[in-house]
Amino acid sequence: MRATVLVRPKQGILDPQGQAVESSLRQLGFSVGEARVGRVVDLEVESTDPAAARAQVEQMCERLLANPLIESYEIELGETPS
Amino acid sequence: MRATVLVRPKQGILDPQGQAVESSLRQLGFSVGEARVGRVVDLEVESTDPAAARAQVEQMCERLLANPLIESYEIELGETPS
Repeated sequence: MRATVLVRPKQGILDPQGQAVESSLRQLGFSVGEARVGRVVDLEVESTDPAAARAQVEQMCERLLANPLIESYEIELGETPS
Repeated sequence: MRATVLVRPKQGILDPQGQAVESSLRQLGFSVGEARVGRVVDLEVESTDPAAARAQVEQMCERLLANPLIESYEIELGETPS
């Protein structure tokens, strides 16, 4: 089963990469509001049961993919990521 | 209008970060297949018309957010990102 994990800096946490993107976009002439930059991780898990797969990916997030102190994560499961 | 941009390494393009994540997950005991790591950019655009907003974000992707040679991007528009 395919899993897509979105890892983002939590609200209120400083995001220098987002600030850089925001100011660069403004310099290019775009009107943009608060930009935040995070990571997307696509991976294939063995489990075919959605609940089991989600539990496993949550474990991966807690142990490696995200820093729960400063980042939040969102898990999407599916068959065909684009 | 909120826009979420997912930027991923294209199929066939080497992704050392994905390889590192994959091997680290395996060392932690998880059974995972090909992991790929990209970026997620959340931003607020001025336009309230979805078609205009999408066109503007596409411009941002081409000019700054993604490297079209080696990365693909996906744009999601919405009111409330989590």
